[in-house]
Amino acid sequence: MPKFEHLRHKPPVELSRERQIILACAPMRSNVNISTIVRTAGCFGIGKIILCGTNKVDRKIARDGADSVEIENRSSLVPVIKKHKEQGYHAVGLEQTTGSQSLYSFAFPEKTLLVIGSERDGLKQDVLDQLDTVVEIPVYGMPYSYNVGTAASICLYEYCKQHS
Amino acid sequence: MPKFEHLRHKPPVELSRERQIILACAPMRSNVNISTIVRTAGCFGIGKIILCGTNKVDRKIARDGADSVEIENRSSLVPVIKKHKEQGYHAVGLEQTTGSQSLYSFAFPEKTLLVIGSERDGLKQDVLDQLDTVVEIPVYGMPYSYNVGTAASICLYEYCKQHS
Repeated sequence: MPKFEHLRHKPPVELSRERQIILACAPMRSNVNISTIVRTAGCFGIGKIILCGTNKVDRKIARDGADSVEIENRSSLVPVIKKHKEQGYHAVGLEQTTGSQSLYSFAFPEKTLLVIGSERDGLKQDVLDQLDTVVEIPVYGMPYSYNVGTAASICLYEYCKQHS
Repeated sequence: MPKFEHLRHKPPVELSRERQIILACAPMRSNVNISTIVRTAGCFGIGKIILCGTNKVDRKIARDGADSVEIENRSSLVPVIKKHKEQGYHAVGLEQTTGSQSLYSFAFPEKTLLVIGSERDGLKQDVLDQLDTVVEIPVYGMPYSYNVGTAASICLYEYCKQHS
């Protein structure tokens, strides 16, 4: 009998309760990146993503994540962050900044609002000013910056590993 | 003075020596996925990727990763895995299989050949038969499978976190 056999439809891990992390994304240039994030969020059992601006989820990329994740549309990030902080969420941005902590060592509070910047501008100063914590993924080589969909997916992985 | 200020060109972390991980990818349906993996590998300071089949790296997606990562082209995975095992590499596949370990708890040997399957077929049985270990990223919700570029990027993150 082979040691490893491919399982095409392995049953998912059941969560004992709803995940306490919500994603909030700045207006993105690319619907591909947003849709990649929605697919990853669906797989990790994330319940909700808040999209700012006019981004549309491409169902060919997000797959069933487009149905399993609630998508809420807002015009800008600052009021979203303020509201969630009032509700007890810890606002964590993903960005290279002066005060960022390494994702390797940051312990995510269970109630986290994860704030993702846009491809070109990242998180703007008025948004950074609202955050409790900023994390970054260490960079070792060119092109010196992760794709935003990749970076957000890695962040979700780290959160879910800590709250599994 | 603000707590967090965006740093657009933060210097990368210097590696004290070359990374001992090599990626080997099955023939992919999408050059976008291969190119995403090359970009992530570049950022993590990975030196080499072996591509099987006819995939081409899209420089608009891989960015400078297309230059910083050595790309080697081979026709099939099995001889690549055999050769690297002889050279002391631990062959780790990324796949949902009967004998997979969770990526949450797997300790990567420093000398790792990370083997990535294709979008549709994953890793085939003749490849699985050559592997020392298979890891998988836990899945909690629809669409029940991560995009291959996302999954490979998460795996590289976990390796680099362990060997940082």
